[in-house]
Amino acid sequence: MSKAITSRSQDYSQWYNDLVLKGGLADYSAVRGCMVIKPYGFALWENMRDELDRMFKETGHQNAYFPLFVPKSLFEAEEKNAEGFAKECAVVTHYRLKTDPQNKGKLMVDPEAKLEEELVVRPTSEAIIWNTYKDWIQSYRDLPILVNQWANVVRWEMRTRLFLRTAEFLWQEGHTAHATAEEAVEETRKMLDVYATFVEEFMAVPVVRGVKTASERFAGAEDTYCIEALMQDGKALQAGTSHFLGQNFAKAFDVKFLSKENKQEYVWATSWGVSTRLIGALVMAHSDDEGLVLPPKIAPLQVVIVPIYKGDEQKARIDEKVGQIVKELKALGISVKYDDNDNNRPGWKFAEYELKGVPVRLALGVRDLEAGLIEVARRDTKEKETIAIDGVVAHVQALLDAIQQNMFERAKSYQQEHITPANNWDDFVHLLDEKGGFIAAHWDGTEETEAAIKEQTKATIRCIPLNNQQEEGACILTGKPSKERVLFARAY
Amino acid sequence: MSKAITSRSQDYSQWYNDLVLKGGLADYSAVRGCMVIKPYGFALWENMRDELDRMFKETGHQNAYFPLFVPKSLFEAEEKNAEGFAKECAVVTHYRLKTDPQNKGKLMVDPEAKLEEELVVRPTSEAIIWNTYKDWIQSYRDLPILVNQWANVVRWEMRTRLFLRTAEFLWQEGHTAHATAEEAVEETRKMLDVYATFVEEFMAVPVVRGVKTASERFAGAEDTYCIEALMQDGKALQAGTSHFLGQNFAKAFDVKFLSKENKQEYVWATSWGVSTRLIGALVMAHSDDEGLVLPPKIAPLQVVIVPIYKGDEQKARIDEKVGQIVKELKALGISVKYDDNDNNRPGWKFAEYELKGVPVRLALGVRDLEAGLIEVARRDTKEKETIAIDGVVAHVQALLDAIQQNMFERAKSYQQEHITPANNWDDFVHLLDEKGGFIAAHWDGTEETEAAIKEQTKATIRCIPLNNQQEEGACILTGKPSKERVLFARAY
Repeated sequence: MSKAITSRSQDYSQWYNDLVLKGGLADYSAVRGCMVIKPYGFALWENMRDELDRMFKETGHQNAYFPLFVPKSLFEAEEKNAEGFAKECAVVTHYRLKTDPQNKGKLMVDPEAKLEEELVVRPTSEAIIWNTYKDWIQSYRDLPILVNQWANVVRWEMRTRLFLRTAEFLWQEGHTAHATAEEAVEETRKMLDVYATFVEEFMAVPVVRGVKTASERFAGAEDTYCIEALMQDGKALQAGTSHFLGQNFAKAFDVKFLSKENKQEYVWATSWGVSTRLIGALVMAHSDDEGLVLPPKIAPLQVVIVPIYKGDEQKARIDEKVGQIVKELKALGISVKYDDNDNNRPGWKFAEYELKGVPVRLALGVRDLEAGLIEVARRDTKEKETIAIDGVVAHVQALLDAIQQNMFERAKSYQQEHITPANNWDDFVHLLDEKGGFIAAHWDGTEETEAAIKEQTKATIRCIPLNNQQEEGACILTGKPSKERVLFARAY
Repeated sequence: MSKAITSRSQDYSQWYNDLVLKGGLADYSAVRGCMVIKPYGFALWENMRDELDRMFKETGHQNAYFPLFVPKSLFEAEEKNAEGFAKECAVVTHYRLKTDPQNKGKLMVDPEAKLEEELVVRPTSEAIIWNTYKDWIQSYRDLPILVNQWANVVRWEMRTRLFLRTAEFLWQEGHTAHATAEEAVEETRKMLDVYATFVEEFMAVPVVRGVKTASERFAGAEDTYCIEALMQDGKALQAGTSHFLGQNFAKAFDVKFLSKENKQEYVWATSWGVSTRLIGALVMAHSDDEGLVLPPKIAPLQVVIVPIYKGDEQKARIDEKVGQIVKELKALGISVKYDDNDNNRPGWKFAEYELKGVPVRLALGVRDLEAGLIEVARRDTKEKETIAIDGVVAHVQALLDAIQQNMFERAKSYQQEHITPANNWDDFVHLLDEKGGFIAAHWDGTEETEAAIKEQTKATIRCIPLNNQQEEGACILTGKPSKERVLFARAY
């Protein structure tokens, strides 16, 4: 039981770390705040990335690649953006190391190799990209530009958590350029919908779509749209954002186009991104005290088959049958592993694949085989059943769909039970402390009140939901009039 | 003719830059030595990457991701490796910017946010990876580790060329760990074969497989295997390398395993990589004075269809027919674009797709349509023919295969005509200056002679070919005895 994991009730935070580390998703590294994404975790990310990439391309986007470094003078061009990220920038100042004369076998930064202008390691790429778009855009015929980049970015966070908040993370960032504000807003919302569809249909995590308040906006945006998910501990997690950037970057980098009406106009911009943080959301939304629970549509391994036997003769008979099953499952595009490793016992394997969140486990012993039966266990509910071996392939295929759907419905029920209205301050605080989740409450619309509520409760406004119901009410803190409820929560 | 490109005979180097820039593959950026990979160039890279990734997975490798930064103390642990890369390292020294009090609206590096230990932006990842493997490996049961990473790396080169030599580039780096030297050598050679197969079968570029001399080895390797390609100007280009690292990194990072014989032993290592440099090789191996010539198997777009018409009625009839063709081509997995953009004339489009290297162009006008005919042009030979429209889909499918094969054969003939033996110094120098290509010559095996030849001719030993014919001879420079010829060339 070296892989024993802390239970959620005992220590939710430690439970999360245990799953990520012992489930084989990621490791700490020698670099402060940076993680190593291990093969199993990376296979999960590849499945997520490939699906998102397909959705981006279906909506007309192309991939490109821009430099890792942003010269300081470009970085500071859009002032709000620069101000927002300045405090967490890794900065390259030198381009060479040399032998340390004081210290045999050691190296030191060569003071003669100081850069004339420092380079910021990109925390986000608006600056370098808009500086490039300046050369790509002359006329309305060059628009729209619909480009996405898969990249690593660095934000020097002081408190880091595996996947949730790391100094370096992997993400995609879409950066589009448009001739009109309307078209840019439409793009912003379209990509929010792409994110919501992906997170709900593939990750089986329900989200609320909304708009951020001014104080929670991306630095340099006119509007930040977001999808917000709920974790099992009642805390919210921002799963993706899509920004309408107005003409801020076009003005900062002087990107104009000749319109159909033959006038020089500034270009309209959007940017949108999701990151490896989604893996943290996935873990915390579904998993249990036995380990990860991964949705079939993105699980690196969908089915594992464990043989139960004594001796080579039994093994040979099981191998033969399993060989057929594996072949048929693969023909259906289902990923499957036959774990006949002799070094581990079946019980150890069962625990291991539970920890790793493999959606379906088949176990086949000789007695079952003789009776034409096979044991099927599903990870999400931990139910086991013994079924006729002849129908196992079709059964597994249907079961994978059922698991995907059940995981979403379970998470959706949890989410719906955890959107609670509060009509006064005491209820608000009590709900936050005792129940968690989203609290739907009136707010007077000022940044001061928002800050005061955060100061007193650590709850932030996660979003103003899209198509929000309009309703007269009074701010829970100040009592001032309000026209709609917003969603508060404590958040990751 | 704003896109006119320099001819090869006029200025080969400018021709290359013209193709990369005007063909839409890449752009210069605001960051010294770093490039922007544009959507068309990135789509090409995606096709190459996806195929390589499939080949890596088929040979048992998994992807993972390791940090961008390497703490200086880890970087310097393997001395030869550190020494080899120290001179071209971008170094992060600070983690914050702040408002510059002297300079309104500007930022400056915050001197209070100096890192205790500098971070090197990875020029290659052996150090950070072997420091991680230390935690992953205890016993022979943990071996082999067969991991690959797709990543960006930074090498602060003084003279840069788009794709060929850039400060930041994209690559993959495989890093494997083994229980025995034999197994590690086998892996090193297996991956060299994967590279050779990929470059020859997908990029249609023939290569010579060989081993580097000691002075051309990767810093920290015991042996560097390579594939060497030949460009149309007679210069060689190293297209991929695969390194047997011995126990050098295991010793530097103290990575031991308990063997089956219950002894603590150091682990054996390999690493292997190819990069976006391959795109430079692709461009220079095949393209001509009209533009890029891309092999069908990795071309972002395989077929383009251009309509030739006057007025809506003609257009509608062509549209209908082309619609069917597009559908049938797509059903065969062939990528196709129908360019019916009204803003450009057919002649402009023909030149544009020639520049972009699209392997097959179809042109359909009303007169041809009425006669049941269609014009088919192939990019590699620039031959045109008019064929029956009914058979066009099958014809295009076969033609794509024929183009792929023809491109390889043409390049292979060029390569074979440019491996020339030289038996004395005068011939050697003359061949280098007048003919170029690989010169097969005897060499006395010493680093001094190798350096002297390089000094006098700029030619380096590209490799000692695998399965090289053994033959008594005399070194072309020193006349000392030699047992085999090695391949010299001037190189990129």
